[in-house]
Amino acid sequence: MEKQMNRQVATWIWYPGEFEIRLHEKMSVARRARGVMYPAYWRLDRHYSNIKFRYSYELEQDEQIQIIADGTFSFYLDGMDNYRSSDSLITLPAGRHEISISVFNDVEVPALFIDGPTVRTDSSWEVTSYQNDWKQAGSWSFDSTVNPPSRFRLPTTPHEPVKITLRDGYPMVDFGRETFGYLRFHNIKGNGAVRVYYGESIAEALSTEDCVNLDRFEALEAIEQRINGIFTLNEAKAFRYVWIQGDPDVSWESVSMLYEYVPVEYRSSFECSDPKLNEIYDISLYTLQLNTREFFLDGIKRDRWVWGGDAYQAFLMNYYSFFDLDVTRRTLVALRGKDPITMHINTILDYTLYWFISLYDYHLYTGDFEFIRQYYDRAVSLMDFCLKQLNEEGLVEGRKQDWVFVDWADFNNEGAVSTEQILLARSLEAMSRFAALMGDDSASGSYGSLAEEIKSTTLRLFWDEGKGGLLHHRVEGETKPTLTKHASMFAMTYGYLSPEQRDSVVRNVMLNPDVPKIRTPYMRFHELAVLCESGEHDYVRKELLSYWGGMIDLGATTFWEEYDPSLADDDHYGMYGMKFGKSLCHAWGAGPIYLLGKYFLGVTPTSPGYESYRIAPNLGGLEYMKGKVPTGTGQVSVEMDLNTICVESTTGTGILAFFSSECPKCNEGEPREIVNGSYELTIEAGKKYHISYQPTK
Amino acid sequence: MEKQMNRQVATWIWYPGEFEIRLHEKMSVARRARGVMYPAYWRLDRHYSNIKFRYSYELEQDEQIQIIADGTFSFYLDGMDNYRSSDSLITLPAGRHEISISVFNDVEVPALFIDGPTVRTDSSWEVTSYQNDWKQAGSWSFDSTVNPPSRFRLPTTPHEPVKITLRDGYPMVDFGRETFGYLRFHNIKGNGAVRVYYGESIAEALSTEDCVNLDRFEALEAIEQRINGIFTLNEAKAFRYVWIQGDPDVSWESVSMLYEYVPVEYRSSFECSDPKLNEIYDISLYTLQLNTREFFLDGIKRDRWVWGGDAYQAFLMNYYSFFDLDVTRRTLVALRGKDPITMHINTILDYTLYWFISLYDYHLYTGDFEFIRQYYDRAVSLMDFCLKQLNEEGLVEGRKQDWVFVDWADFNNEGAVSTEQILLARSLEAMSRFAALMGDDSASGSYGSLAEEIKSTTLRLFWDEGKGGLLHHRVEGETKPTLTKHASMFAMTYGYLSPEQRDSVVRNVMLNPDVPKIRTPYMRFHELAVLCESGEHDYVRKELLSYWGGMIDLGATTFWEEYDPSLADDDHYGMYGMKFGKSLCHAWGAGPIYLLGKYFLGVTPTSPGYESYRIAPNLGGLEYMKGKVPTGTGQVSVEMDLNTICVESTTGTGILAFFSSECPKCNEGEPREIVNGSYELTIEAGKKYHISYQPTK
Repeated sequence: MEKQMNRQVATWIWYPGEFEIRLHEKMSVARRARGVMYPAYWRLDRHYSNIKFRYSYELEQDEQIQIIADGTFSFYLDGMDNYRSSDSLITLPAGRHEISISVFNDVEVPALFIDGPTVRTDSSWEVTSYQNDWKQAGSWSFDSTVNPPSRFRLPTTPHEPVKITLRDGYPMVDFGRETFGYLRFHNIKGNGAVRVYYGESIAEALSTEDCVNLDRFEALEAIEQRINGIFTLNEAKAFRYVWIQGDPDVSWESVSMLYEYVPVEYRSSFECSDPKLNEIYDISLYTLQLNTREFFLDGIKRDRWVWGGDAYQAFLMNYYSFFDLDVTRRTLVALRGKDPITMHINTILDYTLYWFISLYDYHLYTGDFEFIRQYYDRAVSLMDFCLKQLNEEGLVEGRKQDWVFVDWADFNNEGAVSTEQILLARSLEAMSRFAALMGDDSASGSYGSLAEEIKSTTLRLFWDEGKGGLLHHRVEGETKPTLTKHASMFAMTYGYLSPEQRDSVVRNVMLNPDVPKIRTPYMRFHELAVLCESGEHDYVRKELLSYWGGMIDLGATTFWEEYDPSLADDDHYGMYGMKFGKSLCHAWGAGPIYLLGKYFLGVTPTSPGYESYRIAPNLGGLEYMKGKVPTGTGQVSVEMDLNTICVESTTGTGILAFFSSECPKCNEGEPREIVNGSYELTIEAGKKYHISYQPTK
Repeated sequence: MEKQMNRQVATWIWYPGEFEIRLHEKMSVARRARGVMYPAYWRLDRHYSNIKFRYSYELEQDEQIQIIADGTFSFYLDGMDNYRSSDSLITLPAGRHEISISVFNDVEVPALFIDGPTVRTDSSWEVTSYQNDWKQAGSWSFDSTVNPPSRFRLPTTPHEPVKITLRDGYPMVDFGRETFGYLRFHNIKGNGAVRVYYGESIAEALSTEDCVNLDRFEALEAIEQRINGIFTLNEAKAFRYVWIQGDPDVSWESVSMLYEYVPVEYRSSFECSDPKLNEIYDISLYTLQLNTREFFLDGIKRDRWVWGGDAYQAFLMNYYSFFDLDVTRRTLVALRGKDPITMHINTILDYTLYWFISLYDYHLYTGDFEFIRQYYDRAVSLMDFCLKQLNEEGLVEGRKQDWVFVDWADFNNEGAVSTEQILLARSLEAMSRFAALMGDDSASGSYGSLAEEIKSTTLRLFWDEGKGGLLHHRVEGETKPTLTKHASMFAMTYGYLSPEQRDSVVRNVMLNPDVPKIRTPYMRFHELAVLCESGEHDYVRKELLSYWGGMIDLGATTFWEEYDPSLADDDHYGMYGMKFGKSLCHAWGAGPIYLLGKYFLGVTPTSPGYESYRIAPNLGGLEYMKGKVPTGTGQVSVEMDLNTICVESTTGTGILAFFSSECPKCNEGEPREIVNGSYELTIEAGKKYHISYQPTK
């Protein structure tokens, strides 16, 4: 105990959620369109400038503490608010007392750091925004006096270009693959202007009129700003290529960049008999890492914003790769924002709903309910907001000011869209679970029965027996005949369909060429997941190879926002009416991480925090695969070929599920045959399992 | 028309209300307690950092405009948001187009200034905070490019001390009367520290251990910061005296101050046969002016905050003196703040209710409904918030976190307090009127009937026939026997009592020495108003002379927060457990302005904006009085002695009401006898009326 006390350190504390809110405000205006600010088009929430901390102590003797605040502070004891001090050194009297400290900061998040022999700031302190809302203080890893939360920056590391060629007499610098950071000029000299054109593609960098990112500076100013001979541009950009046009009198020794990144750990792996698939997996990881930043971004060139639907997928990919929960929590807090709720997250109805489902997944994958408890009231009020939009039939509809997105596709989202109902039902199931964990059984019951009601109404009103799937939308009491894949996909994923309905959806909707194709990796993510859940691994593998492989064949070093194989040449780069409008490094392009980890290696939690889990490896037409999936602090390793499965896990208890046409042999444990040729084997942590099996036809 | 066009100037524009919100945030942390920040203890609302302006134009030819933003801006045309510009000079193409300009500023209010031959920023531009809330832009008097709203400062002017004496060898500088501003040292020299002790009283300045305001600076730093040989301290303070202790090596030529003020126009006057009353009136005006600042403050030394109940009275005083509507509007906007509403204004239930009543008064005195229209939705949501606090009997109660203030007095405000019910009924009447003016008859009806309901419930449950007044509060269905003046006072003022009840209240409550005395000028304001409404002018005059005159006798140059004649010497200065805690310049001390203007000169609007009004002058025991009251752009002048009344008005139509025991003679118009000896005469603008009358006994 003594030792533990000595190991405690003081840390910066603040009003919970405010670090994320303020960081999100800053990041939401970092996007540039040809050098011009392009801010997010939703309300940016702001931190409280005026807050107060409190802490009760009992000391046997007087103790001197040091007080540092990010902002202006005033200290008082035992509620004597007329007798305040702003001294940085205070001697606390012995006995039982309560410290109060007001902190005001209207620029950055007000934060407090107090260090003393025993009295020190940490998350056991309380804080209020003067709304009758005493809460446990927020804190993270800011343990140094000189490093308050307002100074948070991602780390950087220098990277050199891999190739420099001349184009029209100007250097075209190639960093080998998509990257993100600050361009640097070494030993720049002379007088004149330098113009920098960035490109995710070489075509973009060469297009001085249409490239999305550019810079322009005067050499004389750059020279003034050099540190150790290096001039670093002050805004980070996404690029692979930079084409640099300097005036004749300007010269420099070399160009490099500072790569800015989150130091994630690559905790998953996937390697298989198909090198192309390995490449797809690796590029997916890199694509995800580039978008794993202050928050999960949609894309690093564009929009550089935090979108709820994009983040929903990034969270899932993250559970199958870096398992970085810090960025997940930051993103969830930033997305929810503050009250009053007047608009949906990112203005999009579905994106609000993904937030609940993301929270559900967070709990399932991490087992951490404390985080959800902290934001439970914000979840409740967000759900209240959604439920105000139920129409007379009890279905959720977008208001005039809402964007009902679903996907980039040519469909009409008027009225009640079936996908939104499915997402709402799932969101209500999430709320029901959270309420139960909060100990509010009555609220849990209400959320649960409303979820059931919406599910059954949706199936009743949207299921088309003839077409064998859920129709797209319903306007003024009439379900329209349009059939899309989306609602059926989500209904399958969330287990809302009967076995017969599932079969029908796969046959009549998912694999039906007459139903409009999904063009974005965003919805391909869900589409392919559903197909895997129906055992169509072989089909999915081929789709991965053709769709993601297709991007690689076109030179992709990260995966794109959208890919249409029918386009030619530079037409691939256009979107939103801009020649280079498409993001070539889009988080939702990294879906193969999830598909390969969850459905090929086959690892899924079956109770929160991977206390129990299922391993259902599936080669999907491969001859061999090997990989691992993080499961919180632990991991599951899976290796499989046509006759052997090797599994090892560090924590929890798993069930290995596999098929074998003959009775399998195991070095450990006893496989149980569930039905014809389907076996299960209990996996205990710390043991290595080798199973010989005979593949079924 | 041509001329008007040419007279138009560009002006800074912003999201409406944000200038006030941001200014309020800054001012709410300006208070110091012995040099240490003492922030307001309620949530400080913040401006939106991310907004967008739009404007549609039609031009016959191209036009160049200049764009200046307070913040970062990006401009685009016709919704083409991927094609933005941040150039300060833009050529607008001829034809019909829509301009959009995003402005981001996370420190000060984002604001925009555009000037061109015909396209210029003004309040016809629209702005959104991205919440589906396009509004007319806010603007005021910021017409110069170099003077955006963030640079708003009150004007200052140099004032010299009137007397300097030595105390313990250190200069005691006396500025002659209470003042507010920045102390200045002329030609300061040498090396060492200077300590400044401020006092509203000389006792406070001499009390280095207990004075509320102090400063300390190093001469060397002061010398560095001199401008034209003058070092000005950078925080304004309230004081009459400063006691300056310099180290032996420090010297200066002289000390002066920069008086900081709102340049109000003294539009009222009152002069009478009693010089003491004249003095009371003048000191009241000065007291009010000192507290008329960025907002109406409670007091300039303490709290320097904006309080709803204090402001309610300051608004009324202002209508009878400066008629400065800018400060009134700023204060109303700042008090309401932004959503979500979680706490009452200043945490006080009654202060929220005064906000509605203040808005009602604003409309009555100014006739300006446009301002109310702009904030009507905020009034609706604030009322929604209040109505959630109705108990089972339909009475409003404070929640656990609410402060039910009523007055500084020793009474128990548990349960449903009768005063709060009266204030709520009046607030609902205000909302009913606003809803009707908004064209929402249904809402108007609901508010109106709820007001009636609360009125009748209150009279039924709180009126005590035996005691002849409204009892103080009701706890868990039982009205407690405590009798206080407050509820009865307000019920009289708002006309909720029958003539019999009014008589009873005056006799059994107001003039009953057994009912607890009111000690604050805050509630004396309402008490004396009610007595005037009952014709007790003579009594009120005597009270003015003894209570306010009592402060003058103690050397007051402005009126105090509280005055208790039974205290001795420096005990007058203590409050809140601090030896000099009392504010000696408190807005609510200036009530005589209102009492003398409204009840002695007798001027009251009877329809919004003084379109019609009543003049009921009453000498109240004086031999002579003369004065004027502003009535919007116009004014009413009244002069009266024991036999003559002279009245003149510049606008609207008034009724002069007076008593005469004989038939009065008028130079203009025809007085009508209403009842025995009570006469009315119609007053037309622009005419001088001389009436000879015979006073009644």
